[in-house]
Amino acid sequence: MSKTIAFIGLGIMGLPMAKNLVNAGFDVRGFNRTPAKADALAEAGGSAAATIAEAVDGADVIITMVPDSPDVEAVLTGDDGILAHASAGATWIDFSTIRPDVAKDLAEQAKTAGLKPLDAPVSGGEPGAIDGVLSVMIGGDQADFDAVSDVFDAVGKTIVLVGPSGAGQTVKAANQLMVAGNIGLLAEAVVFLEAYGVETGAALQVLGGGLAGSKVLDQKGQKMLDRSFDPGFRLELHHKDMGIVTAAAREAGVAIPLGATVAQLVAATVQQGNGGLDHSGLFTVIEALSGKNEN
Amino acid sequence: MSKTIAFIGLGIMGLPMAKNLVNAGFDVRGFNRTPAKADALAEAGGSAAATIAEAVDGADVIITMVPDSPDVEAVLTGDDGILAHASAGATWIDFSTIRPDVAKDLAEQAKTAGLKPLDAPVSGGEPGAIDGVLSVMIGGDQADFDAVSDVFDAVGKTIVLVGPSGAGQTVKAANQLMVAGNIGLLAEAVVFLEAYGVETGAALQVLGGGLAGSKVLDQKGQKMLDRSFDPGFRLELHHKDMGIVTAAAREAGVAIPLGATVAQLVAATVQQGNGGLDHSGLFTVIEALSGKNEN
Repeated sequence: MSKTIAFIGLGIMGLPMAKNLVNAGFDVRGFNRTPAKADALAEAGGSAAATIAEAVDGADVIITMVPDSPDVEAVLTGDDGILAHASAGATWIDFSTIRPDVAKDLAEQAKTAGLKPLDAPVSGGEPGAIDGVLSVMIGGDQADFDAVSDVFDAVGKTIVLVGPSGAGQTVKAANQLMVAGNIGLLAEAVVFLEAYGVETGAALQVLGGGLAGSKVLDQKGQKMLDRSFDPGFRLELHHKDMGIVTAAAREAGVAIPLGATVAQLVAATVQQGNGGLDHSGLFTVIEALSGKNEN
Repeated sequence: MSKTIAFIGLGIMGLPMAKNLVNAGFDVRGFNRTPAKADALAEAGGSAAATIAEAVDGADVIITMVPDSPDVEAVLTGDDGILAHASAGATWIDFSTIRPDVAKDLAEQAKTAGLKPLDAPVSGGEPGAIDGVLSVMIGGDQADFDAVSDVFDAVGKTIVLVGPSGAGQTVKAANQLMVAGNIGLLAEAVVFLEAYGVETGAALQVLGGGLAGSKVLDQKGQKMLDRSFDPGFRLELHHKDMGIVTAAAREAGVAIPLGATVAQLVAATVQQGNGGLDHSGLFTVIEALSGKNEN
């Protein structure tokens, strides 16, 4: 019998992921603070729940995809939350990106309540969510992971158990460090090339073919040339994630000089009022630093 | 009739490139300061020249692939150099990575002497040189480029004219900025993941599948996990290149905060005696910063 899934948090990433679960044949009940998103899921063949209790009641798998650590904590432990209403033995998959230490702590609370927790943050952005080809980095027990591999297969392409509870979030923190850095370096390269009057379209093509090639260059290069920064993944969320990775690095006694620098650049972009842009909009602060944005 | 090519500089990159030109049917005469390398080319079907004069005499295309700006200048303008001995109308392709302003100046001298100059630095490393799949970023005139496209096809895969003389070097400078930065960010991520005891092999697999994916991760990740830093492309050369890009950025009034940070990290690695390592050996200084290299 197909699994029943409760999907809590139907945003830019959550809604297409939930739709892919519907298309894979799961019975998906969606809950979102803004009910219109749950209605969109119902139109796609799922169903809309009015409360978390209604969504999780009897569900085999409970999924959360919400913005930040306090949101996950509230949805899990609140009076009307998951722990208060979930069936014992259900698997809880948290696709959100949150602090590794919070993930570990919440996993322990979930286990105590009889749930099987997996922290499973994703990478690949909205296009990856729509196409069902996300990278999913998972922390938790092997047996719990194996039991829901069909759920992961419906939303992702590269799906890897990387360690115990919290390890998924640790790897995601490293991911966000690298992505922000790669975006910043690409932005510096583009501003540099423009300053020298190089044919930037041709330049990005050849850069992408060599050792400088990256997913960030492929997905964000043209957006920088076009100054087109519609989200996508918003800078204010990446700013939150840079707080996670810089705090976790400090906690572990690890120096991340490039990570710290790009964290400051991301913070500056948000402070300048551009937190609602796609994270490729980090370009705006690199350009402004050089006074090239008035051209 | 097939072109006659003089190939000056048969190092880690130059020798396999020259061999690929031989295999493509060109008549290739190699010159190297250390003659053994020219003998290796002769064994592969080319011929060994004892002097630059002997190599370039009557050649249709003259190629240079030497370490730095002064080397190119000496080979071009020296008493026994290219300008003193080349046939008028020959094309001079400089595959070396040098300063864009020097490239522009030398191109003008070459034009005055009746040569057709193309600055054509490459990316892709020793594996790309061996497999003939380098990225080649080219500055010069369209007609001069078109006339030797068969030469480029024999050594590269992504071959792009990016602007007038010097533009190839400008794009290569941006390439080196991005590559050094991507290496540094990967190193920070690996040290961070190891500090948390994550299964790093699995972590790099999933990171490579998401937006953090890059050629640097694909080619250098395992080297960092293995602490295996045999060159490859030596840090001391990347240090030279970071000097080029930081100077060129300053000249153009462009701030490159991430580029400047990674330039310092590369410089520190060289100062610590590790300039002979592959550039992935930038990992050693990131690890040392956190005191994690005594484990």
